[in-house]
Amino acid sequence: MRFSSFFVKTLKDWPSDEENPSARYLIRAGFIDKNSAGVYTFLPLGLCALEKINKVIREELNRIGASELLMPALISKKYWQATNRWDVDVMYKVKDSSGQDYGLAFTHEEVLTPLLKKFISSWRDLPVALYQIQSKFRDEPRARAGLLRTKEFVMKDLYSFHADAKDLDSYYNEAAGGYKKIFKRLGLNAKPVEASGGDFTEEYTHEFQVLTPAGEDEIFYCDKCDFAQNKEIAKAKEGEKCPSCRSGKIIKENGIEVGNIFKLGTKFSEAAELKFKDKEGKDRLVVMGSYGIGPSRIMGAIAEVSRDEKGIIWPEEVSPFKVHLVELEGGREQAEEAYKVLTDGGVETLYDDREDVSAGEKLTDADLLGITWRIVASARTMKQNKVEIKRRAAKEASEVTLAEAVAYVK
Amino acid sequence: MRFSSFFVKTLKDWPSDEENPSARYLIRAGFIDKNSAGVYTFLPLGLCALEKINKVIREELNRIGASELLMPALISKKYWQATNRWDVDVMYKVKDSSGQDYGLAFTHEEVLTPLLKKFISSWRDLPVALYQIQSKFRDEPRARAGLLRTKEFVMKDLYSFHADAKDLDSYYNEAAGGYKKIFKRLGLNAKPVEASGGDFTEEYTHEFQVLTPAGEDEIFYCDKCDFAQNKEIAKAKEGEKCPSCRSGKIIKENGIEVGNIFKLGTKFSEAAELKFKDKEGKDRLVVMGSYGIGPSRIMGAIAEVSRDEKGIIWPEEVSPFKVHLVELEGGREQAEEAYKVLTDGGVETLYDDREDVSAGEKLTDADLLGITWRIVASARTMKQNKVEIKRRAAKEASEVTLAEAVAYVK
Repeated sequence: MRFSSFFVKTLKDWPSDEENPSARYLIRAGFIDKNSAGVYTFLPLGLCALEKINKVIREELNRIGASELLMPALISKKYWQATNRWDVDVMYKVKDSSGQDYGLAFTHEEVLTPLLKKFISSWRDLPVALYQIQSKFRDEPRARAGLLRTKEFVMKDLYSFHADAKDLDSYYNEAAGGYKKIFKRLGLNAKPVEASGGDFTEEYTHEFQVLTPAGEDEIFYCDKCDFAQNKEIAKAKEGEKCPSCRSGKIIKENGIEVGNIFKLGTKFSEAAELKFKDKEGKDRLVVMGSYGIGPSRIMGAIAEVSRDEKGIIWPEEVSPFKVHLVELEGGREQAEEAYKVLTDGGVETLYDDREDVSAGEKLTDADLLGITWRIVASARTMKQNKVEIKRRAAKEASEVTLAEAVAYVK
Repeated sequence: MRFSSFFVKTLKDWPSDEENPSARYLIRAGFIDKNSAGVYTFLPLGLCALEKINKVIREELNRIGASELLMPALISKKYWQATNRWDVDVMYKVKDSSGQDYGLAFTHEEVLTPLLKKFISSWRDLPVALYQIQSKFRDEPRARAGLLRTKEFVMKDLYSFHADAKDLDSYYNEAAGGYKKIFKRLGLNAKPVEASGGDFTEEYTHEFQVLTPAGEDEIFYCDKCDFAQNKEIAKAKEGEKCPSCRSGKIIKENGIEVGNIFKLGTKFSEAAELKFKDKEGKDRLVVMGSYGIGPSRIMGAIAEVSRDEKGIIWPEEVSPFKVHLVELEGGREQAEEAYKVLTDGGVETLYDDREDVSAGEKLTDADLLGITWRIVASARTMKQNKVEIKRRAAKEASEVTLAEAVAYVK
């Protein structure tokens, strides 16, 4: 994609109304724009990155047998009343011109569970796993830190439906495995952390936490084994001996929660009377799990943990384009050839073909945007019949032939 | 995709609470589910069809130089006040816990115009064309007819920004051309119809209307030339001579509006003070256009005009899968082979691999789902070393080798 035919606009100045570093970088690079506190627009490059995140999530969830659907946000009061969540304080409420009440969905158990009553009647219909990627709303008085805590956000929510707790347990582990793959592909080191099961289960649930001082959650984990708990349930304090392996020491760090998995049991199937006939013909309640990931928050988390003073460094699978091709003075002919070769070879390339823009400005923008590979074509490289290639994360560039460059990035 | 690993569920009965035929078919085939009046879920197969529609729209809009972004729905009162639209009666309003007011966006001029103030300052920054595909909300007391008139709906809205009216005119024509291509690819005969410019322009705007008795708009058009106007501005009555070509006769028909294009002029740039310096260094207001298409309504319109008594007949580019592969008794081995060959060949295939389901039920479901091509593998076809292939819209099936079938559908 050429700059000249795509909306790529960086800002000269840092935003005056954002303190959080991830938000400052995302805004200055033209990935997002703040509409009001906790409400953001994804500009074209930001949407590219967001869609890359969504693609990874979809691929891994499809692999564990989940099907994607799309549920609405405007949910009639009766559904929230059925589960006693009409008065949850984070829910925005809307009244229509005929006096009907709606809540803007912050979660979708209330929609999906009654829906499945129409489709599930026998043990043969189970298990079912359904997910969506959709905008959710949350009355968030503490909206802060850019995409990390917002009033409107993109959410991936997966719900699973099972004949018994054993089948749920097995899917829960499968989902945990899928989550690990997702975060790894997204370049995030997301630690599974035990958390409280709330009203739903006496077992622990699991949060996936990206450890960073910018996170607002507090995590206590062992420096030797996998033991990790959030503040709410932590059995050991900082510096104490690990209660699990008895040899490691407990470390306290902050984290950004980028996902969670949750055994819901039968709370929602009871409310919706979602039952099925088991093999003996007996009516039983469906057993449920729910699994969340926040793609927009992930974008914020990446901008938080993967950047240097010049800009964001996108992990390869999230990078809005694979290559940022920069034409410098005298390199037009070579740049055009490189653009053709790259795009013909199926390499997603953002091509800075701007005229009347200085080399310094173009290279500064490339660092700010943080696309994985940068290829520069200039009078000098053209004379040598090579291009300059550099990974965004690397210190040094190399000069290689165009064919070599294509092979590198593929 | 195998039935056994994808959520495909048809209903045995017609929905009791829908009268509109398109909605009845979409619900019975398991494409959509009604959550409350005017609020629907897209089930996995429905989402596949919706995404096919979106894909066509994206391809054609990218071709006319528009970039995709994603704006929020929760829009602070101040933006609506700036354009005097806070009291528009179709807008849902929300108050948060701190007393702040928001409107749920039914359109996005109020978001995008102020946003572009940050990025547009010179004639060099123009033109700009940006679009999104996003869920919109509308307090719709007449919610009816399934996806044709809803309270929450998927909308593609494109906005263009120009240095002068001439540049807007030229882009408006380009957009009209893009729209014609989109509707053609979507299998819809959408007639461009003149409509009022409202407060924005003295010129006509254009609606794209799919003519069908199920539509709620009334269109007056000439049976010989391109003259077509909606009821609001119609210069000629049914049966009269065409005021344009003076030889054709005016026909009155109902239509479903699936798109519209609109010259906004400077109303919104004035409200947001969106100005730029022209070549002479003089401050001028940006001139705007807006262009809508309703992907979810298009899905309803297709289900309205493209079906028979057995189910929907999806146009090829909208069909949720390209092939519906049906395994009948004794055809397992051949069906598995066909599934492998088709998917290896990149043909999106929905494979009815259900056991213990009768041939009648499988074939009825295939007609109900309306996927473009049906391929059947049974004991009989296996013996003949051929498969049975049939277009959903065709009366007769043919028997061909698997290789021939693949060549047909590719």
